[in-house]
Amino acid sequence: MTVKNQAIEYLIIDWGTTNFRAFALDNQGQVQDKKELGLGLLQVEDADFANALQGVLANWLNNYQSLPIFMAGMVGSAQGWVNVDYAATPVNNRGLINNAYRFELPWGALATIIPGVSHQAKNGVYDVMRGEEVQLFGLAKLTQSASLTAVMPGTHSKHAVLDNGKMTEFASFMTGELFSVISQHTILGRGLPKQIDNQDAFLRGVTESKTEKLTSALFAARTHRLFNNIQESDVYDYLSGLLIGYELNNLANNLTNNPVYLVGGKGLCARYQTACDALSISAIYMNGDECFLAGMADLISELSNV
Amino acid sequence: MTVKNQAIEYLIIDWGTTNFRAFALDNQGQVQDKKELGLGLLQVEDADFANALQGVLANWLNNYQSLPIFMAGMVGSAQGWVNVDYAATPVNNRGLINNAYRFELPWGALATIIPGVSHQAKNGVYDVMRGEEVQLFGLAKLTQSASLTAVMPGTHSKHAVLDNGKMTEFASFMTGELFSVISQHTILGRGLPKQIDNQDAFLRGVTESKTEKLTSALFAARTHRLFNNIQESDVYDYLSGLLIGYELNNLANNLTNNPVYLVGGKGLCARYQTACDALSISAIYMNGDECFLAGMADLISELSNV
Repeated sequence: MTVKNQAIEYLIIDWGTTNFRAFALDNQGQVQDKKELGLGLLQVEDADFANALQGVLANWLNNYQSLPIFMAGMVGSAQGWVNVDYAATPVNNRGLINNAYRFELPWGALATIIPGVSHQAKNGVYDVMRGEEVQLFGLAKLTQSASLTAVMPGTHSKHAVLDNGKMTEFASFMTGELFSVISQHTILGRGLPKQIDNQDAFLRGVTESKTEKLTSALFAARTHRLFNNIQESDVYDYLSGLLIGYELNNLANNLTNNPVYLVGGKGLCARYQTACDALSISAIYMNGDECFLAGMADLISELSNV
Repeated sequence: MTVKNQAIEYLIIDWGTTNFRAFALDNQGQVQDKKELGLGLLQVEDADFANALQGVLANWLNNYQSLPIFMAGMVGSAQGWVNVDYAATPVNNRGLINNAYRFELPWGALATIIPGVSHQAKNGVYDVMRGEEVQLFGLAKLTQSASLTAVMPGTHSKHAVLDNGKMTEFASFMTGELFSVISQHTILGRGLPKQIDNQDAFLRGVTESKTEKLTSALFAARTHRLFNNIQESDVYDYLSGLLIGYELNNLANNLTNNPVYLVGGKGLCARYQTACDALSISAIYMNGDECFLAGMADLISELSNV
């Protein structure tokens, strides 16, 4: 069904490797409609992103050809539509805009891709993000804080520091992806029955992540089964606790802002909240979508001042 | 072809999850013949280990029915032939023998399975090994040292300490298995060309394992590609260096015996040797098979004194 609402003025799109989410906004910046599809960048046939996008929009909005589109996420990567150069830390809102990539879509509307951010850590190794930078600036807007620390859980979880309106540093942790491959492909997950939620097992993992080297601590997911210290049905929660705890220990030792914000989906952030409680990290949950939209709205208003 | 040599007096078998290796020894303890097969415990049909073993022996040795058989490794686990209780640390040769499991084979010969070892670490978490304990005691015999530290690289690498003839502690590191799943199943290994050996990339991984949290450091295998800091063909060596370096850092900080012994296959131990050099850990290579055979020979001579 095509939306007839002529009040729609622009579109915001979060286009990632496995997901596509589009928001239709009116001239007040209010979301009038949204669309979520499994049309990740990897699913786009022949990498013909313009065609895929037009297909979605034509079925959704009758005035799509006149709507400017603002995009962020992996759509601006080498695997995406255009490989947009990273903005380097320290970076503020304006720095993102200065590095944004603008181009005309085949149907005449203007597209803008917000760049990701790169950070060179003390040891000279680079880290990168695409999409979370928008959430971070949105979080700053929503909380009216120019200095804060955010944890953005996910496949590649990010810890980012905003200092006086500039993102000064961040680090990635492969927590989500490692949980996935370790539980699916190693001996630790082999031959397990259906897994159930067990907060005690999760907290045990969090606690035991503090005392051991990770590649050694992980082996306990096997020995705890052998010695009946955890149930076979609780192994995933124990592993999840180990990996999330290991990630957060780092934060606990280097905390510059208190509390930290947990930004993302509700379920995963609830796990992080539980782990933060156990590690005495004061944490506040903020909805990831709301941060993303607030960040994009802010960037768009700055763009219109360019 | 069946071996006719009547001088064969007993068999030593290292039976693991994916490999089967049997040695035929004379009354001087010399290896007269050996057999290596891809007949790991998981490959044995219907878990009928007696039948599988008889099939191998009958085709190999004409006098097999009279030969005592001494086994070690995962054959003594819940996934193996008999689940033999672990001997607990601290444990010496005699402790292993006291916990050995003996039974009569269907064809009348005597079988002995050497138990694995369990160790309760300071944090109350257990660790386990099956097979490496034999290598450790064999190493002690070959080097004539009652106190030493050994690193036994592999799928689940082991660091073990022998103190005055007793194994007092050890730890497992999932280095090999993590390398395998991370390189095969995560974004870090996706879309790579054929990998080549590059010692510089390996050493860079070793060095960078020292300064970062592992789940964060791993992400550099991606960013180094993005920033052309390592070649696409060198990613495996970088990853290998990170994981081996991370494992060995632990040892470098807790070294009680110097030098350490690297016990195992030549190729993998050469990587560990290179990493040890970079981390200023003095290391000596010892052939894993020779250590295993020396350990079994020693246990067998003790057994005959029981």
